[in-house]
Amino acid sequence: MVSLSSLCASFFHTGVVRTAASVEGGSAQRATAPGVALVQGASRGLGLEFVKQLLERSADGRVIATCRDPAGANSLSLLKEQHGERLTVLPLDVTKESTIEAAAKAVSEQHARLDMLINTAGILHVDHLNVQPETSLGKLDPHAMILTYQINAMGPLLVIKHMAALLKAGGGKGTGASAAIVANLSARVGSIGDNQVGGWYSYRASKSALNQLTKTVSLEFARRKDPVVCILLHPGTVDTDLSKPFQRNVPKGKLFTSEYSVQKLLGIIDGVGFKENGKFFAWDGQEIPW
Amino acid sequence: MVSLSSLCASFFHTGVVRTAASVEGGSAQRATAPGVALVQGASRGLGLEFVKQLLERSADGRVIATCRDPAGANSLSLLKEQHGERLTVLPLDVTKESTIEAAAKAVSEQHARLDMLINTAGILHVDHLNVQPETSLGKLDPHAMILTYQINAMGPLLVIKHMAALLKAGGGKGTGASAAIVANLSARVGSIGDNQVGGWYSYRASKSALNQLTKTVSLEFARRKDPVVCILLHPGTVDTDLSKPFQRNVPKGKLFTSEYSVQKLLGIIDGVGFKENGKFFAWDGQEIPW
Repeated sequence: MVSLSSLCASFFHTGVVRTAASVEGGSAQRATAPGVALVQGASRGLGLEFVKQLLERSADGRVIATCRDPAGANSLSLLKEQHGERLTVLPLDVTKESTIEAAAKAVSEQHARLDMLINTAGILHVDHLNVQPETSLGKLDPHAMILTYQINAMGPLLVIKHMAALLKAGGGKGTGASAAIVANLSARVGSIGDNQVGGWYSYRASKSALNQLTKTVSLEFARRKDPVVCILLHPGTVDTDLSKPFQRNVPKGKLFTSEYSVQKLLGIIDGVGFKENGKFFAWDGQEIPW
Repeated sequence: MVSLSSLCASFFHTGVVRTAASVEGGSAQRATAPGVALVQGASRGLGLEFVKQLLERSADGRVIATCRDPAGANSLSLLKEQHGERLTVLPLDVTKESTIEAAAKAVSEQHARLDMLINTAGILHVDHLNVQPETSLGKLDPHAMILTYQINAMGPLLVIKHMAALLKAGGGKGTGASAAIVANLSARVGSIGDNQVGGWYSYRASKSALNQLTKTVSLEFARRKDPVVCILLHPGTVDTDLSKPFQRNVPKGKLFTSEYSVQKLLGIIDGVGFKENGKFFAWDGQEIPW
């Protein structure tokens, strides 16, 4: 088996992200400190895996997992049974701003702070709503385009809007880091410069917009001198419901498990500081062009 | 007075766009050939000016001007009186796909072709709808974000969707060019790489998304070998209703008249070919990073 440290070597040497230490042993400051983390879109896929790993890697960190329907989120219920009060599950639908406000109020009352916010909810295909990765111009559907924009681009920003005061209050201090981290899950296909093949109009556009919105909010936190760093992450192609219809096109060895992808992404998150504010990184630490 | 040719020299030498000849004398092949051009968002500002200049520079070119409410578009009515059957005014609201379809049907029946499509409609502030260039995160309003996305990003693409067959049929042949041109008006603040100051969340995101959508459709036309070239244009800061509230911040000499900006943009449009497909140019011909 290839060791994580050898996998890390390649991006350690790019000099882009100083993450190798934390990925290697899970022993970075942030990884073992408690802190309060919120994962938005946590009922399945990458979001669920973030919750698992955040709970596992520290004995006293607190995790808030949000999803549209906590009652139907069986995997989160199981984790709640295991981890008790360390895990809070809250309802949050990014298309309904009132639910984001209510979640922020609950976090405020319970913890009065946040050290990490990971926005993972995203859509690429929703059959009954005609949301699809369009293979041609003729398939553009205004309703599907708007819904994709609402969930993939506006959603993370509206969550940041309502959590901003909590992030400033946390500031990473609970984790030993110098800033709270906001990580928005983007995708390489959101890169305009990297777009060589076309297609997937709605999804691509929503992720390009998310990239711009994240860059914009990173500048606002910096201008205010708030202890908050915002980054964008490309998780690779991961074996989740989102990628299911396209997995046959993925080269051998390039379809990651959620476990592997999240391990790499947390390694990046652990390593970033103010210098990385507003940047866009792939799972292997390489910076992705806009 | 600085001559246009000396102004052109600077961007002629960048080697990015071969536009100097056409801007200098208005004598490029495309400029004097008739052809059929459609300007979307033509009742005022840059759109109206595009219609004027397209009508003026050729004695027999045909122009279709679209806007939401032709009955209230007095400037277009005046142009119609002057130019008669060379100008057609059609209703088109980019947020109502049925009106785009109807406009495409009308163009099809009248001309069966299009050689140029210029999408200009865009919003930055609409007071009674709370659309504003947000100066901080706290001002994000979901309804305003969606409307900005619909008009600035989705609008041009939905117009291209319904005009694609007409553009392919035209292919620029009526103008002596090798391809029909689609020019989408973007903005430098839509560049993620160029974003140094933040703010203007909804507008920036919508233009980044438009950039991605235009790049994507440019690849689709190329893949199909359709004779259609798509570009993005930044008009500079122009003295229109859109820029009114911000003109006091514009450095002296950098607030352009519509006449000047459109003259420069038509110069670029006249000069592009397949090599420029999918690129993003400022009014002076410089390529803008994503």
